[in-house]
Amino acid sequence: MAATVLAATATARTGAAHAVPRSGKGPDIGILLYDGYTLLDPTGPAEVLSRLPDATVTMIAEKRGAVRTDTGDVAMVAERSIAEVDRLDVLLIPGGGNRGTIGAMNNEPLLSWIREIHRHSRWTTSVCTGSIILAAAGLLKGRQATTYWASADYLQSTFDVTYLPQRYVRSGKVITAAGVSAGVDMALHLASLMAGEDTARAIQLAIEYDPHPPFDSGNAADADARLKEHALQLLAASQV
Amino acid sequence: MAATVLAATATARTGAAHAVPRSGKGPDIGILLYDGYTLLDPTGPAEVLSRLPDATVTMIAEKRGAVRTDTGDVAMVAERSIAEVDRLDVLLIPGGGNRGTIGAMNNEPLLSWIREIHRHSRWTTSVCTGSIILAAAGLLKGRQATTYWASADYLQSTFDVTYLPQRYVRSGKVITAAGVSAGVDMALHLASLMAGEDTARAIQLAIEYDPHPPFDSGNAADADARLKEHALQLLAASQV
Repeated sequence: MAATVLAATATARTGAAHAVPRSGKGPDIGILLYDGYTLLDPTGPAEVLSRLPDATVTMIAEKRGAVRTDTGDVAMVAERSIAEVDRLDVLLIPGGGNRGTIGAMNNEPLLSWIREIHRHSRWTTSVCTGSIILAAAGLLKGRQATTYWASADYLQSTFDVTYLPQRYVRSGKVITAAGVSAGVDMALHLASLMAGEDTARAIQLAIEYDPHPPFDSGNAADADARLKEHALQLLAASQV
Repeated sequence: MAATVLAATATARTGAAHAVPRSGKGPDIGILLYDGYTLLDPTGPAEVLSRLPDATVTMIAEKRGAVRTDTGDVAMVAERSIAEVDRLDVLLIPGGGNRGTIGAMNNEPLLSWIREIHRHSRWTTSVCTGSIILAAAGLLKGRQATTYWASADYLQSTFDVTYLPQRYVRSGKVITAAGVSAGVDMALHLASLMAGEDTARAIQLAIEYDPHPPFDSGNAADADARLKEHALQLLAASQV
C-alpha cells in the first residue's frame, strides 16, 4: 500500500506538519453550538478556518457534550462549555431552525456570554439566523448585516439593523453571512482578513471550492413564491 | 419575542412538520465516519440530503461514539456501529487526510462492510479521497470516477479507474465527488435523482446555495505549482 495517497510537494512530504507545529499560537476560533443548530452553518466555516496557520477551532456549548442539529439526526461534540471560555479571537454563531434560533435568542446566559466574548474578540461572526442571535444579544444595533433570506424581514423589523442581501456583510469587526452555505464564502473572506489573500486562496484550493451547483435556484431574489414555499416546507418537515 | 423567526408560508406555518411527519419511510442515508475524516465531506452532503422528504441521515462508524476529524479539534457522534447497520439506501464515504484515508483503506472489516452495504444500496457515493476507499474496497473496478485533485494520479495509477476532473461522476449507482466542497454539488445532483429536480431546486434554495467564492482559486487545473504547494502545506500543517 502506498504511503502517500495525496500528492505532496517536497516540502509537505518532508514534514510541514512538524515544521509548522500546531502551537496554539495561532487564532483561537470558537463556534457556539446550541440545540437545533443547522449542521453546515458551523462546519463549513470550521473547515475553512481550521486551515489557517496554527489555528484552533473549538466547538463550545452551554454544557460540554453532544449537541444535536435541527433535524435531530446528527450531533457534534462541544469540547468546552461557555463557562470554560472567556476569550476568543474569532466567535462564530451558527443559525438554526425556528426552535433552535428562538431557544438561543431567549437564553440569557448564552447571550451574556456572547456579549462578553465580543468585547475582546478580533472578529464576531454569524451564519444564517445566527445574526438574529447576535441582534438579540444587542450586538447589531445600528449595523448593516445579512441573514437567512426567509428571516430578513424579521431581522430588520425587530432590531435596529439594515439588512443587505449579500453573501456576507462586514460592519466593523462583525461579519454576518447569509443562509447556511454562505458561511463558506464568509469564512474565506475572513481568512483573507486574518492571514492575507495568498493564504485564503490556498485554503480555497485546499477544499477544492470551485462550486458548480447543478441548478441556479440558490438565490431567493430570483425564486418564485412556489419555490420559496417548497423550500420552507422541506425545512419544516425535516426539523424536529 | 416573536414566535416565528423564519418567514413561513401558510402551509409551513400551519404545521408542515406535522403534515409530513418524519416517518422513517423515506430514504435511509448512512455516512461512514472514521478517525481522520475531513469535516465538510460528510456534513455538506448531510445538510442537503437531510432535507429530502422523510429522509433519515445516520452517522455510522466502526464503534458508536465521537469520531475526530483530520485536525483533531472537532468530533461528530456516530449514532450506530457498522455491526448495527446492514442495509442503506444511500451510503456515503467521506474523504480524509493521508492518515485517515490510509487507515480506512487498510481496515478490512470496514471495507467488508462497505462491500456488503453496496450490494443492496440504491446509491453508493463518496466525497474527496472517499473514492480511494471505495476503490480499495474493489467497488470502482473499471469505472470512471473523481477524487481530490491531489489524489487523482494515485487513484488512477493504483486502481483500475479512469479519473475524470469533474465535480462529480456517476457510474451506474456509484457517484464520486471531487474534493471536500464538491460533496454539496454531488448531493444536490443525487437529491434530483432521488426526489426529482423540483425538490432538489428547493433544497438548494433552502440552504441558500448561491455560491460567491471571494477568489477564483478553487480549481486545481488553473492553479500554479506554488499555490498547490501552499494548499498542501496548509493541509499537512493543520492535520494531526
